[in-house]
Amino acid sequence: MSTISRFLDQAEHCQSLFENAIRKLEIPTCQVFFNQGVLTPVAFKEAGIPLTTKDTAAVNAAFPNSVAASQNQTLVADASNAKPATGKRVAVLFSGGPAAGGHNVIAGLFRILGSANALLGVKAGPKGLIQGDLFEISAANIDQIVNTGGFDFLGSDRTKIKSDAQFEGVRQTCIKHNLDAIVVIGGDDSNTNAAVLAEKLYSGVKADGSGVQVIGAPKTIDGDLQIGDLLPISFGFDTATKIYAEMVGNILQDTPSSRKYWHFIKIMGRAASHVALEVALQTKPAVTLISEEVAEKQLSLAEIVDSIAKTVIQRAAGDMNYGVVLIPEGLIEFIPEMTALLQDLNDKLAECKDELAGKTIAQQCELINGKLKPEHAKLMASLPDYIVDMLMAERDSHGNLQVSLIPTERLLIDMTAARVKALDASVKFHTLNHFFGYEGRCGAPTLFDAAYTYNLGLTVGSLILAGKTGFIASIKDLDQGGTPLALPLTGLLNIERRHGHDEMVIEKALVKTSSPAFQYFAQRRAAWAAGDCFCSPGPRQLWGPASRQMPLSVALNRDYASMEFEF
Amino acid sequence: MSTISRFLDQAEHCQSLFENAIRKLEIPTCQVFFNQGVLTPVAFKEAGIPLTTKDTAAVNAAFPNSVAASQNQTLVADASNAKPATGKRVAVLFSGGPAAGGHNVIAGLFRILGSANALLGVKAGPKGLIQGDLFEISAANIDQIVNTGGFDFLGSDRTKIKSDAQFEGVRQTCIKHNLDAIVVIGGDDSNTNAAVLAEKLYSGVKADGSGVQVIGAPKTIDGDLQIGDLLPISFGFDTATKIYAEMVGNILQDTPSSRKYWHFIKIMGRAASHVALEVALQTKPAVTLISEEVAEKQLSLAEIVDSIAKTVIQRAAGDMNYGVVLIPEGLIEFIPEMTALLQDLNDKLAECKDELAGKTIAQQCELINGKLKPEHAKLMASLPDYIVDMLMAERDSHGNLQVSLIPTERLLIDMTAARVKALDASVKFHTLNHFFGYEGRCGAPTLFDAAYTYNLGLTVGSLILAGKTGFIASIKDLDQGGTPLALPLTGLLNIERRHGHDEMVIEKALVKTSSPAFQYFAQRRAAWAAGDCFCSPGPRQLWGPASRQMPLSVALNRDYASMEFEF
Repeated sequence: MSTISRFLDQAEHCQSLFENAIRKLEIPTCQVFFNQGVLTPVAFKEAGIPLTTKDTAAVNAAFPNSVAASQNQTLVADASNAKPATGKRVAVLFSGGPAAGGHNVIAGLFRILGSANALLGVKAGPKGLIQGDLFEISAANIDQIVNTGGFDFLGSDRTKIKSDAQFEGVRQTCIKHNLDAIVVIGGDDSNTNAAVLAEKLYSGVKADGSGVQVIGAPKTIDGDLQIGDLLPISFGFDTATKIYAEMVGNILQDTPSSRKYWHFIKIMGRAASHVALEVALQTKPAVTLISEEVAEKQLSLAEIVDSIAKTVIQRAAGDMNYGVVLIPEGLIEFIPEMTALLQDLNDKLAECKDELAGKTIAQQCELINGKLKPEHAKLMASLPDYIVDMLMAERDSHGNLQVSLIPTERLLIDMTAARVKALDASVKFHTLNHFFGYEGRCGAPTLFDAAYTYNLGLTVGSLILAGKTGFIASIKDLDQGGTPLALPLTGLLNIERRHGHDEMVIEKALVKTSSPAFQYFAQRRAAWAAGDCFCSPGPRQLWGPASRQMPLSVALNRDYASMEFEF
Repeated sequence: MSTISRFLDQAEHCQSLFENAIRKLEIPTCQVFFNQGVLTPVAFKEAGIPLTTKDTAAVNAAFPNSVAASQNQTLVADASNAKPATGKRVAVLFSGGPAAGGHNVIAGLFRILGSANALLGVKAGPKGLIQGDLFEISAANIDQIVNTGGFDFLGSDRTKIKSDAQFEGVRQTCIKHNLDAIVVIGGDDSNTNAAVLAEKLYSGVKADGSGVQVIGAPKTIDGDLQIGDLLPISFGFDTATKIYAEMVGNILQDTPSSRKYWHFIKIMGRAASHVALEVALQTKPAVTLISEEVAEKQLSLAEIVDSIAKTVIQRAAGDMNYGVVLIPEGLIEFIPEMTALLQDLNDKLAECKDELAGKTIAQQCELINGKLKPEHAKLMASLPDYIVDMLMAERDSHGNLQVSLIPTERLLIDMTAARVKALDASVKFHTLNHFFGYEGRCGAPTLFDAAYTYNLGLTVGSLILAGKTGFIASIKDLDQGGTPLALPLTGLLNIERRHGHDEMVIEKALVKTSSPAFQYFAQRRAAWAAGDCFCSPGPRQLWGPASRQMPLSVALNRDYASMEFEF
């Protein structure tokens, strides 16, 4: 067998040259976790920052145990914990979609718990917690997963723990595995889940009447779990945005090389446009749409299209028959007239259900168009056929359409092409479309995400060893050594109307048009549209001089002194 | 203005932290280019390897000047050139689609020509050469472009120089700019162009009767310009495949994390499957289709689909309701029954043109189905409607369909879903599809491509300073210091039937199923299908321990001692 064949055999199961090298990479660690050079859990003190929302009174009433214990006070890392608990049995699970760095939360947690405590992995997310599918994590496991991407070590799922039977399942798991604490690595909904679990498991779980601690860690590539200085960003956002930004940067570099295509690129990130904004700051394309601005300015689809078409024409005049348009995944839902049309359409389709049965799509359209409000009928008439077909398609059991399935990038291409032609038929407009999404969730973490998550794991473990429950771990001052924090989950809960009833949930953070990151973008975008100003963060570097850059929107919004993190 | 805003302003125009860092990166250089520590052009001697093809006699007759000069002998770098020419004026151009490393060919060329010669850049490819759109390249230009991706420094186009008027344009450009040499950086067709130019410009261009030298450099991300040990690979292939492999690796890591999707991923690479094979070797997904094998084994579409469906079912039995299927861009054209159907369809559509006019697609289908050969009518009936619509669509002026527009990944998903359901309706089969293409052409070069292209540029410049014409530069022994070579372009020309007449062209290299790279893949793929064996090359590292990996298919096929290049 040849040397190369042997190498290839050995590379199977995530053992490539790169994957083995990152396992040996030293992870930057906040100084507060060292006591005379030895990794040591920290104690916490109140930071003097109580957290409240518009619904604090109602939340306090619903979460009496948690609130009595935390007083909704933010905690900050003090010095080393002189008397950390021992003998704790801690379970950790992933919840929701994967994000880079999840494995390092576990690595940090394992190392700070040390040999005096045990860490158990929950397989396949919340479902596994209910079913009691746990195993003890070994040091050898940690050596394999450290600095690697994905959630594959444990798997994940999206089960929401809400029924009595589900809570009873979790309780049985706690008893069966003699758990003292549960760590939930997840996004806003998963941490809402963690808050509820912390309250339900506060006491009376074990034979001696004691409870089980619950601590959350802030995960999501979408960046919609962030709370000003207290939680600068969720983990996974930096890796996903750098992956997308590199791809967008590559395509931008292609545009003046080939000189003939407009690329319309839709980017994952659910409702909020944090991902699109960060990628825009990293790459500076001709056009970037920000959903929150569209909603705030009440822009119509025709206005958005007209603005893109004018940029196309402006650039063509400068011999640039090419460019890039960035589109946030959730755009459609932020265009007021589209949401109004969808609502009107949902109502009319429900009303006319019997009349519509057995008719062709064309006949159905004719019937429904006559019943829609005039402005909605006009908007429908302006849309391409394949979009109309989708809008007329079957609703889910709640009577809703899966808006995320609408191919926004194709819709904008087709409408922009028509608009360009109407404005100036001589302008060349050749297009390509892309969707960047799944390739950004499980890449190897950037050095920032690797370090951020490892230190989040150290913070989570320290909170458990300090006896805390109902908190989410965070780190602030990312440019100045990093300061571990813990935010009381109850202090983050709002009441929102979801699926027809009120729920207490963590609010998704949207892009603020008043934020420094958006303001910077708004000031420069005309220049980016007029010329080629683009740049690229390049492929994520784990070694060398370009490895420490953090998200630019975070550095701008927090007014950091440097865009390189410093732990 | 904040520190971060200033940083962001300065990053415009490809000046990000990463982009500035790579400009300072030292490029590994073959020792033969150093004379007492000073970069020095090399001389060349015959390697004793004449190149021939099946059509050498005809080619020799058509290229008398070039063949008389080269005798179709391969040249190998000797020692330093003691008497390199001075005062040469050299033009360089990009031709065809971009590929990473093009800028470094220019950087190497500029540095080896030194201050005793001048280098001119041709704007916008062959078209710019015909039009005489040239400018003198400065040392400051080189400092800006070195190690960066894209062809944007000069731009490119796909003009084929073939008419008398076009050749006259090139001749006028040579006279106007007093050129001594032209360097064509391009793929197989562009180097065919270079061979013709070398012959046409061999003598009698300038007032003193002298000619203009023409030298080619082997570019293409597709990897279909490679000639065994003599030209191990074209540049850009390593970068493109590592970009695609990282994305595929990320998605593979996502599959056992989310545990619910089969991803069907189409990968750019024109006809040949080199790119898909390399990505498969780098990442080890459950299924990879190789077009050349499909053609060789005369596989039907139904057989391909059945094989994927059986893998889906096999993995489901092991609780793996997920996986990745890699699909080379050119697959459809390699399925014998599909090409036969397309031919039959093209003929029948042309025959029935008048009868079809004014009919609906459904009526057209009925009419045509009755005229197709029975096996083709059956195949048509097995295809999804949107594919049938495409197959019935309008032909180009040659009566051909643009096969590349057929969404192979969707076709295979839909047919596989039907087949899985037929074989075992209980198996869950949720899918997503992707196309990775344009994002791979203009990324920053890997360290391999950066070094390979820089040394190709040194080789090209050395050939010019040694008075050679009609050669393409190459480097062999990539694992052992690198040996610069020059291959006579006429020795690579074959006669092929294209667009209805015979042309002398460089044959596209396809994947050989007898090659070590394919054989390795064929031996391991059953194991990759049965379990999760995947790995990832990770993001391209320019620094650190994982930066020197070369393409694995090249290392396998050349039986190198290491998969890391060594210059």
